[in-house]
Amino acid sequence: MVKSEAALRDAALTRLSERGVTLDDIADLVMFLQEPYFEKLEKSVCLENVKRVINKREVQNAIITGTELDMLAEKKLLSQPLQNILYEDEGLYGIDEIMALAIVNVYGSIGFTNYGYIDKVKPGILKKLNSHEGSEVHTFLDDIVGAIAAAAASRLAHDNPEISDIMK
Amino acid sequence: MVKSEAALRDAALTRLSERGVTLDDIADLVMFLQEPYFEKLEKSVCLENVKRVINKREVQNAIITGTELDMLAEKKLLSQPLQNILYEDEGLYGIDEIMALAIVNVYGSIGFTNYGYIDKVKPGILKKLNSHEGSEVHTFLDDIVGAIAAAAASRLAHDNPEISDIMK
Amino acid sequence: MVKSEAALRDAALTRLSERGVTLDDIADLVMFLQEPYFEKLEKSVCLENVKRVINKREVQNAIITGTELDMLAEKKLLSQPLQNILYEDEGLYGIDEIMALAIVNVYGSIGFTNYGYIDKVKPGILKKLNSHEGSEVHTFLDDIVGAIAAAAASRLAHDNPEISDIMK
Amino acid sequence: MVKSEAALRDAALTRLSERGVTLDDIADLVMFLQEPYFEKLEKSVCLENVKRVINKREVQNAIITGTELDMLAEKKLLSQPLQNILYEDEGLYGIDEIMALAIVNVYGSIGFTNYGYIDKVKPGILKKLNSHEGSEVHTFLDDIVGAIAAAAASRLAHDNPEISDIMK
Repeated sequence: MVKSEAALRDAALTRLSERGVTLDDIADLVMFLQEPYFEKLEKSVCLENVKRVINKREVQNAIITGTELDMLAEKKLLSQPLQNILYEDEGLYGIDEIMALAIVNVYGSIGFTNYGYIDKVKPGILKKLNSHEGSEVHTFLDDIVGAIAAAAASRLAHDNPEISDIMK
Repeated sequence: MVKSEAALRDAALTRLSERGVTLDDIADLVMFLQEPYFEKLEKSVCLENVKRVINKREVQNAIITGTELDMLAEKKLLSQPLQNILYEDEGLYGIDEIMALAIVNVYGSIGFTNYGYIDKVKPGILKKLNSHEGSEVHTFLDDIVGAIAAAAASRLAHDNPEISDIMK
Repeated sequence: MVKSEAALRDAALTRLSERGVTLDDIADLVMFLQEPYFEKLEKSVCLENVKRVINKREVQNAIITGTELDMLAEKKLLSQPLQNILYEDEGLYGIDEIMALAIVNVYGSIGFTNYGYIDKVKPGILKKLNSHEGSEVHTFLDDIVGAIAAAAASRLAHDNPEISDIMK
Repeated sequence: MVKSEAALRDAALTRLSERGVTLDDIADLVMFLQEPYFEKLEKSVCLENVKRVINKREVQNAIITGTELDMLAEKKLLSQPLQNILYEDEGLYGIDEIMALAIVNVYGSIGFTNYGYIDKVKPGILKKLNSHEGSEVHTFLDDIVGAIAAAAASRLAHDNPEISDIMK
């Protein structure tokens, strides 16, 4: 059976939105990462790069899988001990970072450092996703959103090689 | 909260067993991969290496997460389009391979080729897991089992450097 | 300083050719990997996909770095113990597989298994590169060539989703 | 031929020292990464974890390969365009990050974020390695050192699961 590529893409975009993340939020993260290296960086350019990253099937699959696990954990529908591990965002879990890495890889290895940095500093939407308020679970989503921003920053850098030299 | 390491390990082992995979099945895969390079390779040595791989937390987390997704797909409890993607083991999904890679990585990059080879040739238990008989879903499990075998083969090779030279 | 993208691409292509690998050789590997899944697969389609993979900067960097190390090992210009490790293609080295993985990643995780398979079976040019005849060293090149073929096969599969389902 | 494991380990340690990096420098980086999460973290514990990371063959191979390329670039003995790319630490190169990733992977995916963070912030020895003073080239070494510190921090976290929960 041929899966509709448009259906997968739409499902990923809808899911991001339902889980409280706009493409504009992610564009803000790209701006945070890349602004220091540009004289003037337009938000619209960041947004365009975010869209191009989300057009990749590998990224869409990570979004729909990671958020599904978050939602099942939120509803306490998972078996133990996975239920607790995801509900409490346990530090040694690591599968969330693995899924993030799959996204970062799509635009090459220079995205790793941006992903690691943003995941530690947690600006903007990442702070909100990590607030662990109420019963919301975003164990996978925060890593996925950080990875999309890092991949978009890499894509932007690949389009502007003269900037990439300053970045090091 | 400190998660009990023993509880995670037990959960992973129980899950493998419930999903129809014995450690002996995986030891057979290690034997298949490594026998050509040894004059006499004992099955017990293969089994010991499998056990050591499964002792790693990263591997246990991959087992409990991947099989949870398989089981939810089997019960048709996932949202679309993820439900269909996993139920039909769609070729372009890729998140199963990502999880396998997390396992293979634990014993270094020389495991990649063993993983890829065994995943294509599908000997022993891998053939059974891939038969897609009845309503069983093993989209993640077959990759995870192949990855454990590949990691155990790497571990065995690291313990026998003179063999590793023949392997190339 | 802005590096000329064309210069890097030309350097990678020239190097492949100087080291005895034609794009046609790599297209043959893609054909070997993908032919079983197509009713009729044109060699020209394989070649086109190889060219697209080699257009990626990440791939070009892997080519010029890996072959440089091979050539330095051939001329015995490296320090010990690296000189011996590369000259003898030592089984536990692993950095060659790491570089290959960087190439495979560019088209997503479904390429891992193709890379592992072809690296074990060693059809066509891979057999020649691994023959260890005379004083030629191809410790990195054989992994790089296999990885380019695997990435091109992934790219081909992404363009033909109905084929990818059969591939599993 | 069986390579002496001790010889490889000694070569890696000697090389680090010759290139101006002490194990104490790396222990300081681990302290920088982990101190916020401990009431009292002993430097000796950090150092012990650094030593355990460097005991891994995968790490030793990355050290001797990466620094060899740095040294050849320093002496201007590489072909173009690789010579310029490494000499100027070009931002889009990416093979240095790939080698770092091989190190980080050894203790699982939770090390990715530490690696990315430290590579951006560049505390201690990383700042010195990145100063690009005189004709010294540390294009690979700075990533390798950051990766060893990140892997050691992961190892430390794995030994202290209650800390890992605070880390998120």
